Amino acid sequence: MSAMATASATNLNTHTTAYSGRIYNFSAGPGVLPEDVLLQAQHDLLNIGGTGMGIVEHSHRAKCFDRVLSEAVEDCRAIGNIPASYEVIFTTGGATSQNFMVPANLLAQHETADYITTGYWAEKSYEQAQLYGNIHESWDGRPLKHRYIPSDDEIKPSTNPTYVHICSNNTIYGTQWRNADGSVRLPRIPAGAFLACDMCSDIYSRPMDISQFGVVYAGAQKNVGIAGVSLVLIRKDLLAKNPRELPLILQYRVLAKDESRHNTPPVFPIYMSGLVFKWIIKQGGLAALHKRNIEKAKLIYDVLDSSTFYTGHARVDSRSLMNITFKSPTTALDDLFIAGALRAGMDNLRGHRATGGVRASAYNAMPREGCKVLADYMREFERTHG
Amino acid sequence: MSAMATASATNLNTHTTAYSGRIYNFSAGPGVLPEDVLLQAQHDLLNIGGTGMGIVEHSHRAKCFDRVLSEAVEDCRAIGNIPASYEVIFTTGGATSQNFMVPANLLAQHETADYITTGYWAEKSYEQAQLYGNIHESWDGRPLKHRYIPSDDEIKPSTNPTYVHICSNNTIYGTQWRNADGSVRLPRIPAGAFLACDMCSDIYSRPMDISQFGVVYAGAQKNVGIAGVSLVLIRKDLLAKNPRELPLILQYRVLAKDESRHNTPPVFPIYMSGLVFKWIIKQGGLAALHKRNIEKAKLIYDVLDSSTFYTGHARVDSRSLMNITFKSPTTALDDLFIAGALRAGMDNLRGHRATGGVRASAYNAMPREGCKVLADYMREFERTHG
Repeated sequence: MSAMATASATNLNTHTTAYSGRIYNFSAGPGVLPEDVLLQAQHDLLNIGGTGMGIVEHSHRAKCFDRVLSEAVEDCRAIGNIPASYEVIFTTGGATSQNFMVPANLLAQHETADYITTGYWAEKSYEQAQLYGNIHESWDGRPLKHRYIPSDDEIKPSTNPTYVHICSNNTIYGTQWRNADGSVRLPRIPAGAFLACDMCSDIYSRPMDISQFGVVYAGAQKNVGIAGVSLVLIRKDLLAKNPRELPLILQYRVLAKDESRHNTPPVFPIYMSGLVFKWIIKQGGLAALHKRNIEKAKLIYDVLDSSTFYTGHARVDSRSLMNITFKSPTTALDDLFIAGALRAGMDNLRGHRATGGVRASAYNAMPREGCKVLADYMREFERTHG
Repeated sequence: MSAMATASATNLNTHTTAYSGRIYNFSAGPGVLPEDVLLQAQHDLLNIGGTGMGIVEHSHRAKCFDRVLSEAVEDCRAIGNIPASYEVIFTTGGATSQNFMVPANLLAQHETADYITTGYWAEKSYEQAQLYGNIHESWDGRPLKHRYIPSDDEIKPSTNPTYVHICSNNTIYGTQWRNADGSVRLPRIPAGAFLACDMCSDIYSRPMDISQFGVVYAGAQKNVGIAGVSLVLIRKDLLAKNPRELPLILQYRVLAKDESRHNTPPVFPIYMSGLVFKWIIKQGGLAALHKRNIEKAKLIYDVLDSSTFYTGHARVDSRSLMNITFKSPTTALDDLFIAGALRAGMDNLRGHRATGGVRASAYNAMPREGCKVLADYMREFERTHG
């Protein structure tokens, strides 16, 4: 984390600019960002580091962006404890593109991959993989409305999968692969297989052990930046796989070799991820964030657990620390709840159409105070409408 | 252009914020942006339109972004006079992705496409198309170092191409498909074929007639925004083509049907294109910009034409209005020129390694004064070093 110790073009300064009118943004993503990050970006838009140009006006080959990119990669590695045996790639096209790039790059047509379908995006991953190889669904959570993460006994692996795909946090249904203490739980996978993980909505919200994964991918817009860039962490030995001819820009090995600059990368989104990484370091890293995220989620789950008014969607052992989904007794009351919350300074609480009800997303950048205000509002709403 | 007449979340206000230290940025892209655009973005980063959230914190399904996107599309259509028979798509992956998406979506394996290779990026388009169909190079500018755009007599079409691909402006070599007055020149193409055009570095720098094209694509980071989003203008009837199975996110028909939101789009880059479109309208549209761009380029080309010291790379009839490439008598003098220019407040003048020398990019947002300062500097440098 040496980048934090030295003067940097993108250091997060302590800003004193006064502003007001910000509200608590519970959006499922793109969502809330740390205010220090926004203030720094505001400054750098017109003239970054005394270069006479804004960050978005610099060439992606200029020294200024060299530094932004290398610091982002370095800080990303430091935060996640990502060793040199893994590549850190920034790319575009969202996790939706990774849904086909994973099998296109890593699965030969005669090989099999297992997909554990625990939510809406896991369904999409499963569907978009169909073009490549044999895709086996080893768990289907649809009939149970994706209310929980299956136990190992419930998962039916194929005999010799090349990889097993999971989605670590299900944004829409509010479930998460987790142990009782909130730490990462992973499925037991057949020997010889590697784990591929869509980590869009909980990457860098808690400590992780990258050595348990072959490839991890995530759109940045929930916990590590803004829409327009995706992070791919991939074990280097997997880059040797070459199961089919692909355009250069769809090949992980090319993106890795060219260090995320095979073509013009999304300069500003990468810059923003870099700022968020510096903010994460300043918060004390993933252990500190995890502790805070547990406390934040508990404020709201405690209301559910002491209520006869609200019903949570997720089974208790599968509750997400990131997205908390629940309903009041009627959709009319849900509407009242959401409208009243907006008047009280809380926005984007409407649940996804697949679940209805309310969804409160409490990503890294949501302050503890936001969850406290919501929990208090929930209690008051129950008292007056229960 | 009704969006300009009404109150808008992203209207360009007249800003009075004082700032200094900005320099003339001749980068080939990402490059200079209008200062009004940067000032508006600075404001909207923390709280756009009184929503209590920054533009990058809004969900891509929120009303705020609905408006940003619909205004961007509407203004894009108004500026380029794009009729309803064409789709306007914002996507990611740069023009490099379009290089394979055009043939992947529009060329069956038994069909032929002609590629007119007039520069570095045209070479890449030709190379990356090879996976799909029969790719015929109807002109190869490599042996002549891409100094000029071929006449129709020099181009050797195939007998029945599905489309003909060109790159309208060659950023690295400084050539452009143009008539003597700077207007768009296009190759004669075989009956039944449509034109596919990489317009990265001159889109919306001059009037165009979209009906002459089947598909136009461009990364935004030169004339219409920042890195991280690409614009695709495509004739709707071509969306019916379906020559091979592709992942959904690689299908033009899906991107069109989902109105650039098949998945989370690059919110901030699209927002920035929207601001640039409003700026273009405010400048008087493409005719006004073209006039200014001709004047700007003339300031510099006039120096070349009256000099025995500088040598231009492009043949006179093929000179780009966007990227002006030239050399002094020695590489040592080129280095001196570039270093002196930086001291005088002009940056990013070094030519691409393929051509060496100097490259001055004068995109829409480069003020006339910047080109004047450069022309004066060139004359003075010749006087003192010639």
